[in-house]
Amino acid sequence: MSETVTLSLEDCDALVFETLLQNGCDQANARAVTDTIVAAERDRCASHGVFRLPGYVASLRSGKVKGDARPRISQTAPSVLRVDGDGGFAPLALAVGREPLIERARDQGIAALSLVDIYHFAALWVEVEAVAREGLAAFAWTAAAPMVAPAGGVKPLFGTNPMSFGWPRADGPPMVFDQASAAMARGDIMIHARNGTPLPEGVGVDPGGAPSNDPDAVLAGAQLPFGGYKGSAIAMMVELLAGALTGGGLSKEAGDRDINDGGPPSGGELMIAIDPNKFGDPDGWRARGESLFAEMLKQEGVRLPGDGRLKNRLETPTDGIEIPVALFDQIRALREIAG
Amino acid sequence: MSETVTLSLEDCDALVFETLLQNGCDQANARAVTDTIVAAERDRCASHGVFRLPGYVASLRSGKVKGDARPRISQTAPSVLRVDGDGGFAPLALAVGREPLIERARDQGIAALSLVDIYHFAALWVEVEAVAREGLAAFAWTAAAPMVAPAGGVKPLFGTNPMSFGWPRADGPPMVFDQASAAMARGDIMIHARNGTPLPEGVGVDPGGAPSNDPDAVLAGAQLPFGGYKGSAIAMMVELLAGALTGGGLSKEAGDRDINDGGPPSGGELMIAIDPNKFGDPDGWRARGESLFAEMLKQEGVRLPGDGRLKNRLETPTDGIEIPVALFDQIRALREIAG
Repeated sequence: MSETVTLSLEDCDALVFETLLQNGCDQANARAVTDTIVAAERDRCASHGVFRLPGYVASLRSGKVKGDARPRISQTAPSVLRVDGDGGFAPLALAVGREPLIERARDQGIAALSLVDIYHFAALWVEVEAVAREGLAAFAWTAAAPMVAPAGGVKPLFGTNPMSFGWPRADGPPMVFDQASAAMARGDIMIHARNGTPLPEGVGVDPGGAPSNDPDAVLAGAQLPFGGYKGSAIAMMVELLAGALTGGGLSKEAGDRDINDGGPPSGGELMIAIDPNKFGDPDGWRARGESLFAEMLKQEGVRLPGDGRLKNRLETPTDGIEIPVALFDQIRALREIAG
Repeated sequence: MSETVTLSLEDCDALVFETLLQNGCDQANARAVTDTIVAAERDRCASHGVFRLPGYVASLRSGKVKGDARPRISQTAPSVLRVDGDGGFAPLALAVGREPLIERARDQGIAALSLVDIYHFAALWVEVEAVAREGLAAFAWTAAAPMVAPAGGVKPLFGTNPMSFGWPRADGPPMVFDQASAAMARGDIMIHARNGTPLPEGVGVDPGGAPSNDPDAVLAGAQLPFGGYKGSAIAMMVELLAGALTGGGLSKEAGDRDINDGGPPSGGELMIAIDPNKFGDPDGWRARGESLFAEMLKQEGVRLPGDGRLKNRLETPTDGIEIPVALFDQIRALREIAG
């Protein structure tokens, strides 16, 4: 194991927030991005936590992403909202859209939120959980830049294209899963590359199209979808929903215009929120969900999606989080250079 | 290869329709079920075509499914519709819900349709294509009876729980994929069992929980989800959407109350329809979809989901379809006994 620095969540929050402020984020954007990064660290999702901060900073410094973006919301149909992210990071755009989406879903039964002109560099479960916590079922999909080959091919076309789904629980936080349609999340491949550990089979191909266990070769070549043609169909669906439907653009377009500064590509995101009380069985839906989860847990070896995160978040407020020393030093340098 | 009988689509339609009428379906239900079966045969989806007719008939004869069901539609919220299937086969309930769903989606931008107290024994692409053909993006999910183990487990809990998604094309029929969250559709395992051919790896486990290539052992044991824990999460999501949200009931409930007459279990279905013209980029969404499909097809070895079906449907109106002799004789016997 590499050496680590232990930080309290409060110290992590201050470190991230100050680093963003010193590198061109205004207060509102820095707060929204910080909340997203610290939520990942709190749940020990290292691949979407502080590990991403150098990328956020790179895109502020390059001028690709606006640190003072002012996302604007509009309604395009009775059940459809749209946030123009004004070229900023996704978290503030999501914060602007959240309450209106919840209100529309409660009013209409189902509602959708398009987000465009955003730069998404985080996990989707953060925004899905925030909606599902209000008693709604929720979906989110986002595209990225070309990294994943369609089933049968070997050239990157799709983003890693995660989908997330949340369902309110009777007690405690909602069940939320968040999974890349790639066989492995790119953040996890990047962690393998950083740590010098080989990839499992089936994660990707090298630039020549040959299967490879080398994380650097796969990052330069193409990732593969999970589950063969079925995962590929889901990746394609995410392109259509997050890129075409919203107008936020396909992963290929984002890749073509990206300046490869190490930060996130531009793109779109689609969320759908559903009020289960408006579907004709307001007394039954919650009990059925709980019954399903209980049946799953009766089987030895079965876990509920996201339960590792929920367990971790009970521990990190007291235990703190661990950041690799090299990453910690890198972030301190970002502050010193900026300062 | 086993011997087959070649039928025109018209003769197939008449054979199915008359068989249903003679076994207790009224005209409206027989027409809706026949249209669904013949659509599958037209596209050479044997596992959901005439192969299912003995099951439909079994559930009419057992009295489990009402051949004269009168599905009723209601609106539970501005963007949510609900069809009570009155204990009949799904196709007539879907036909009752289709136009109202399309109208709601066009009006609201997004709309949902719950279907409950239905018996679904067909492929989902049929209903998704019917909505997508009208220029809407569409989803469908349905649960079934316990057949698939959650990732990590070996006991059936989830249905094969297909999901289908459709996207309108610039020219010609929409792109529609329809995939079980099981590694293999149960209908295809049944075809393997009928033909005595072994299953590929990873499809299921025997009743003792050991991996097996024997289709009969897997049908008695448990199927496995596609793509490991990610496919399992999707299967779980389908239970929540089609079973809990709608009130149609989980696969486990359907299994517990089923009389195992060889026909479909009772259950629920959820559809969502989206009008892409209401999402803020009415001029761009279609071109972006076409651009994505074109990029996919540039890669050797890549096909669009559903393109096999679209190719087949150009051939079967002239070439006819092939039904195994044993199945054809079985259906003739159903008519003679009933008559």
